[in-house]
Amino acid sequence: MMREPYTVPTPGLPERVTVYEVGPRDGLQNEAAIVPVEVKAELIGRLAAAGLTTIEATSLVHPKWVPQLADAEQLLGAMPRRAGVRYPVLVPNERGLDRALALGVTDIAIFGSATETFAQRNLNRSVAGQMEMFAPVVARARQEGMRVRGYLSMCYGDPWEGPTPIERTVAVGRDLLALGCDELSLGDTTGVATPGHVAALLDAFAACDVGPGRLAVHFHDTYGQALANTLAALQRGITVVDASTGGLGGCPFAESATGNLATEDLVWMLHGLGVQTGVDLAALVETGAWMAARLGRPSPSRVVQALSGK
Amino acid sequence: MMREPYTVPTPGLPERVTVYEVGPRDGLQNEAAIVPVEVKAELIGRLAAAGLTTIEATSLVHPKWVPQLADAEQLLGAMPRRAGVRYPVLVPNERGLDRALALGVTDIAIFGSATETFAQRNLNRSVAGQMEMFAPVVARARQEGMRVRGYLSMCYGDPWEGPTPIERTVAVGRDLLALGCDELSLGDTTGVATPGHVAALLDAFAACDVGPGRLAVHFHDTYGQALANTLAALQRGITVVDASTGGLGGCPFAESATGNLATEDLVWMLHGLGVQTGVDLAALVETGAWMAARLGRPSPSRVVQALSGK
Repeated sequence: MMREPYTVPTPGLPERVTVYEVGPRDGLQNEAAIVPVEVKAELIGRLAAAGLTTIEATSLVHPKWVPQLADAEQLLGAMPRRAGVRYPVLVPNERGLDRALALGVTDIAIFGSATETFAQRNLNRSVAGQMEMFAPVVARARQEGMRVRGYLSMCYGDPWEGPTPIERTVAVGRDLLALGCDELSLGDTTGVATPGHVAALLDAFAACDVGPGRLAVHFHDTYGQALANTLAALQRGITVVDASTGGLGGCPFAESATGNLATEDLVWMLHGLGVQTGVDLAALVETGAWMAARLGRPSPSRVVQALSGK
Repeated sequence: MMREPYTVPTPGLPERVTVYEVGPRDGLQNEAAIVPVEVKAELIGRLAAAGLTTIEATSLVHPKWVPQLADAEQLLGAMPRRAGVRYPVLVPNERGLDRALALGVTDIAIFGSATETFAQRNLNRSVAGQMEMFAPVVARARQEGMRVRGYLSMCYGDPWEGPTPIERTVAVGRDLLALGCDELSLGDTTGVATPGHVAALLDAFAACDVGPGRLAVHFHDTYGQALANTLAALQRGITVVDASTGGLGGCPFAESATGNLATEDLVWMLHGLGVQTGVDLAALVETGAWMAARLGRPSPSRVVQALSGK
């Protein structure tokens, strides 16, 4: 087995990409197991040691909704921090922001929906209503000098409404940016995007003066499309790509295989394309395999499968 | 779960792609299980019923080398045939060609290596020596009115020699075409290709007057790159893509996860891109799931995992 891909410098792509690691939050939130806080802290330490510079740590939503992350305050007290690394925390509302500020958090993320049905189900609000909830959160966070990421879910489709019209995703995304978000992450929450859809959405944003520099992409590998979608996004100039170490958040062969793109598979492609990431792939693979062992099941990442334990 | 992807017509891609199904041959050849001949015949019948128009059926190499396909003659007698569908058979040498002709085979494939080490290990010949072996096979097959595909293994790298120089792959590939092959399938035998490597190789062929119309691509998903590589190939005008139903040939979590690209994941992407295939995706998924059950293990195809039995 190879340990690193061959590098073939590829014209027309960004020189460098920031891998935005979502495993500890989006990944673990969608695992059946409740992971001990010490394991989470070690995971975050390992990811930073492997060279990841943005690691979404946890979520300050009410523990009732996400029991997997009920230890958020404990984790934020216990986890190691490395200079130059950002550790964003998900914050749903002003109460969450208060807690984040009290805990010394400097980077937050808010999460909205592009579709009415998911806004209603996830936030119990309309698409317009979610903006009213977010507006004071973003305003105050900015005043406090925080960096704010906006997540937009269901950018390509949702299970109730079918395909999301591109103009609707662009409109809601622009509203989130207008609140003051530094970055907008376009979520393919149920994995339904294909590469032409991604290109069309990014072109539509660009046509409204939202260039790739303010956008990130967030793919799920439900139908195996995440890496091809990422390639399409890179070809449109995207330089921030979300991924989850070891593919955390999607158990293979589970009832609903809605896993995030595995960070290892992403970094393999980026390094193969000659795109710099600053990530030590071997250390990352070791982390993915270590975490899979903690969860007691194999990682769905192809790279982790191919390289670990051999 | 969705049953079909949303279609977003995507500029710059071929209108139609031929999916070249390799599951019954390349897939089953690399499975540990020996599959009964009736099951193979049913698999081929199901694939044709699902709309696949090229289904590589088996191999006439000596049974000693590939016990999984030792029933080739039986299978060719027993399998159902559908009008308009091609059923190529792998043929290693003149003796294999004799057998193919006696069995009424009309489409054959020969298989060469781009690297010396693999030529030696797989064929016990040098790269030049393999051409001497193939020359009379291709010449006679053409005289007999057969269609001949040339496979070229290790087009991007091999485990012994490292990356294969692009000019070497192009030179050996052109030699195979010069023998009289109708089509050349560029094999990423160990899954080491990344999309920029694919684009560079296809550009190098084009610069030597071998356009995409004479080439096919054949990716393995060892490191999760197969579908992104396919997208890069489509962007270069490739219209024949090899894939294996259910990802046959690579058991997930096996010692060496060297599976072929799953036909279901490929067709999902192609239909999402608005590229026509003529394939009935639902029937194909059912076939992949059915075959996985025959093998007694889950399919590594994400689409089969997501859609089957739910």
